[in-house]
This record gives sequence, structure tokens and C-alpha cells, in this order.
Amino acid sequence: MLVKNCASFYAPWASVFTPVAGSAWNHEFNGGNSLTKTNKGKTRDDNGSTLYVYKILREQIVKHKVAPGSKFNQEELAKELGVSRTPVVKALHKLETEGLVDNIPRRGFYVHQLTMKELLELFTLREALELMVINSVIDKLTPHQIQRLEEIMAPFRGQWTPALIEEYWLADQVFHNTLLEMSDNKLVQKLNETFQVLNRTYMGGIIRKPSESLNEHKMLIKALKERDAETARKIAAGHAAQSRISLQNAVDKLNKLGVDPSKLPVRIFSEEGLTE
Amino acid sequence: MLVKNCASFYAPWASVFTPVAGSAWNHEFNGGNSLTKTNKGKTRDDNGSTLYVYKILREQIVKHKVAPGSKFNQEELAKELGVSRTPVVKALHKLETEGLVDNIPRRGFYVHQLTMKELLELFTLREALELMVINSVIDKLTPHQIQRLEEIMAPFRGQWTPALIEEYWLADQVFHNTLLEMSDNKLVQKLNETFQVLNRTYMGGIIRKPSESLNEHKMLIKALKERDAETARKIAAGHAAQSRISLQNAVDKLNKLGVDPSKLPVRIFSEEGLTE
Repeated sequence: MLVKNCASFYAPWASVFTPVAGSAWNHEFNGGNSLTKTNKGKTRDDNGSTLYVYKILREQIVKHKVAPGSKFNQEELAKELGVSRTPVVKALHKLETEGLVDNIPRRGFYVHQLTMKELLELFTLREALELMVINSVIDKLTPHQIQRLEEIMAPFRGQWTPALIEEYWLADQVFHNTLLEMSDNKLVQKLNETFQVLNRTYMGGIIRKPSESLNEHKMLIKALKERDAETARKIAAGHAAQSRISLQNAVDKLNKLGVDPSKLPVRIFSEEGLTE
Repeated sequence: MLVKNCASFYAPWASVFTPVAGSAWNHEFNGGNSLTKTNKGKTRDDNGSTLYVYKILREQIVKHKVAPGSKFNQEELAKELGVSRTPVVKALHKLETEGLVDNIPRRGFYVHQLTMKELLELFTLREALELMVINSVIDKLTPHQIQRLEEIMAPFRGQWTPALIEEYWLADQVFHNTLLEMSDNKLVQKLNETFQVLNRTYMGGIIRKPSESLNEHKMLIKALKERDAETARKIAAGHAAQSRISLQNAVDKLNKLGVDPSKLPVRIFSEEGLTE
């Protein structure tokens, strides 16, 4: 299999110490089946092509369609996407800036393998931003905006099949990105986009049980609807802190065990890893 | 005067509504006297030159050595710095990404004029980051690190001349950047660097009275020294919130008056603007 699909998971951090099986992370990425839906062979100007390649690759990485550590085969990607190699290389450089891709001299471009330390940093930043966002939107959300948030969470009712968990994992990303967009802070939107802050926090899988976090989303929406600022703040703070604290505990444990969290790759748990 | 030096100020936000005098913001920037200390004519490779030009221009902008709205004269800059035009243009594009420079089609590159809305966004983000930083460092700072923070604030004792206020304005930036560096969160350090988050918050001048903020810095250091986490958090939260709240009030007032804060340039107050 050329492109490893490893979406949908709940990562029980208790077992974070299990080393990642090397082989699972080393698939060669050459733009396989997952790219066939794109407009092959379409001519585009250089900047347009770069953006086009960039968007496809970013989605592949962020949504776990390519495994961390995979190497990009530039020639095959260019061929597959119907562009020259220049936009492929430019797109890879842009992804490198965003921390999604590693450029290893004389070896090439690889899907970045998040480490435990980086995932904790992402969640720490995410928590700070989300509290800021809640404080910014709390008195300003329109009924229409609250309805949009409700609609994102509406399909979920607490019965979890692997397919529903994958759907929820995507909806969760949309929910938090939407709230951030609603904050009307252009700077924070730009930095979230540039560093893929929210999206990358999902690259370790779902840190917490979907049932727990779904419930918190619904309680948050209810508080926003009732204009209950204090409750909304409290739920949002707890919600944001939970994953960060789980990760912090895992990182502290690693340190105690003498394992360097800045070296340890984040393990993504597949459906089999589910504990509920 | 080719390069307007407008460092050292305390911005009383009560008078934020005074329109900025157009002429004061429109000096042509052509790499005048302030650049003469650099290594003229030295040969550098292209990337090295870009970084060299970038660092000089960034410092000029962030430290108020060039007025917002100033146009960059690319030819003269290249001549003055002893480089070709390519690194000058590349450096300007990098500064554009960071929000420090505007690239106006068919007109050229200009020093970005921060708006009131942008300054508020910067302070809102800064507050979120600084609270995060304090939480990250609070149990981890070494005596040596605390001593470094003390040393940055040591020269100030509450007697304020314009020269001392300018020095303090720079020390304040060093203090907060140093704390952020101490947080050991590489992601946050990278985004602070990329968007010049902390440094740009100083581009509106000093928002609060130096005497007040100096006192808070000293109290914070004392709490860190005594490992009094609760007090340190409280001081840091108050310190970070004060400027953001002043700006938020100013922006709310502007909105009520029907003035768009995303259009209103931030006024930088010079020594004459001092109220203490």
C-alpha cells in the first residue's frame, strides 16, 4: 500500500511508551490512489500549481492519509498531479515552513513525524488560543453563528462506530477552527493557518474519549446559547486543558523514565487501539 | 530627515482619537544615516545577503527608526548596504509575510502602518501567550534564569527621563522575549519570531506608564524568586491584561463613535506625549 490511511483513533496515553514499529511509518509516498480524484494534466500557472499541490499534500498529511516518515517522490507526484517539478518542490518547501514536512539534505522531503514534545507544545498553544477565542466571542456570537456550531456537532449522539469516530474526528477539527474564525482576530487566524496549530493537534489521533469531548462541546454550545459567559468560559477552559494535561503527564512520565519526549514519535492509535 | 526616529513614548490612550498627521508618516525611506554602521560593500552569498538586509530592516522597523508609511527605495538600499537588488527584494517579501511591510502593487514596499484593530489583536495574542509562558516556566526557572530577568530590569529605579524611557522601552521587550525563550516551547518561539508578536506590540509606543509596568516586572521577579506560583500568575495575568484592556476600551470607544478601528492608524506618541 503506497498511502497509509491511519485516520480514526483514540489514543490512550497510558500506553504512550510503546515504541512505534519502524516499518509502519516508512511507506514511500508517491502520490498513489488517493490522488486520482484530482484534475490530472490540467495546465496551471506556476503559483496556482504550487497552491494546488500544496493544498492536496497538506490535506493528505493533516488528515493522516500519508504516514509520518513517508518520503515524497517528487517525480511521481508531479506526473500524478499533472504539473512540473517546480511547484511540487515549492509546495514542499511551504509545508516545511509549516512544520509538516522535513527537508533532509541529500535525502529529500519526508512527512514530518511529530514527537511527543511537539504535540505537547501544540496542545499548550492551542489551549492558550482557545481560551482567548472564547473570551473574544463570548458576548459577540450571533444566533446564526451558534447555530453553525450546533450543526457541526448535530450528527453525533454518543453511539460510536469506527466510521463515526473518524467523522467525529473531522467534525471536531471543523468545530474548533470555526470558533477560531468567529473570533475575528486576523492575526490569530493567520498564525493558526501558517503553523496549522489546531489541525496538527489532531495528528496524534483523538487524545480523549469522543464521548467526553462531545459532551463538552454540547455543554459549551448550550452555555453560549444561554449567554452564560461564566459557564462557557469554565467549560472551554476545562475542555482545552484536558488534552494538554494528559499529554503533560505522559511527557513527565517519559522524562522520569529517561526517555526524551523530543525524540519520541507520537504514536497514532488505529481503531484497534480504542478502549471504549 | 530621511529616517524618522520616533522611539520613546508613552501613549495615553485617552487621546487615541486624534487623527495622525499625514505628513509625519510619509518620509521616504532610503537607507540614510542609520545604516552607515553596517559593512558596506562586503560580498555575501545570496541567502546571507537576504538575511543581512532583512535583519537591518526589521530592526529599523520594530525599533521605530523608520516611520510607518515610509517607502523603501530599493536601489538606494542596495547601494547603501553593498548588495544587489535581489536580496533587498527578498528581504522585503519576508518582512511582508511578517506583517511589517506592505507590498502595494505598482507602487512598491512601505513600512506597514499598524491599525488600532491590529494592535489590539497583537496584545490579545500576547496576553494569551504570556499567561501560557508563565504557567510553563513557573516551576522550572533556575536561579540563574531568574537572575537574568533581574539584570534586565536592574538599571531602572523609577526616575524617568526621555532617554531612560527609551532604554526601558527596549529592556521591556528584552524582558518579555527572554521569558518566552525560557518557556522552552519551540513552536511558540517560532511563531513569535515569524509574526514578531511581542516586538510589534511595542510599535504603538509604551501603552502604560513605565512606573506601573516596571513595578509589576519587579513584583513578578520577586514572586518567581520566592517560588510563589500563585502570586506570580496573578501579577503576570494582570500585567498582560492591562494593556489589552486599555486598547479594547479605546477600540470600543472608536466603534461607538463610528470610527473603524481597522482603518485607524496607531498613533505613536513621542516624548511630548508623556504625561508623567
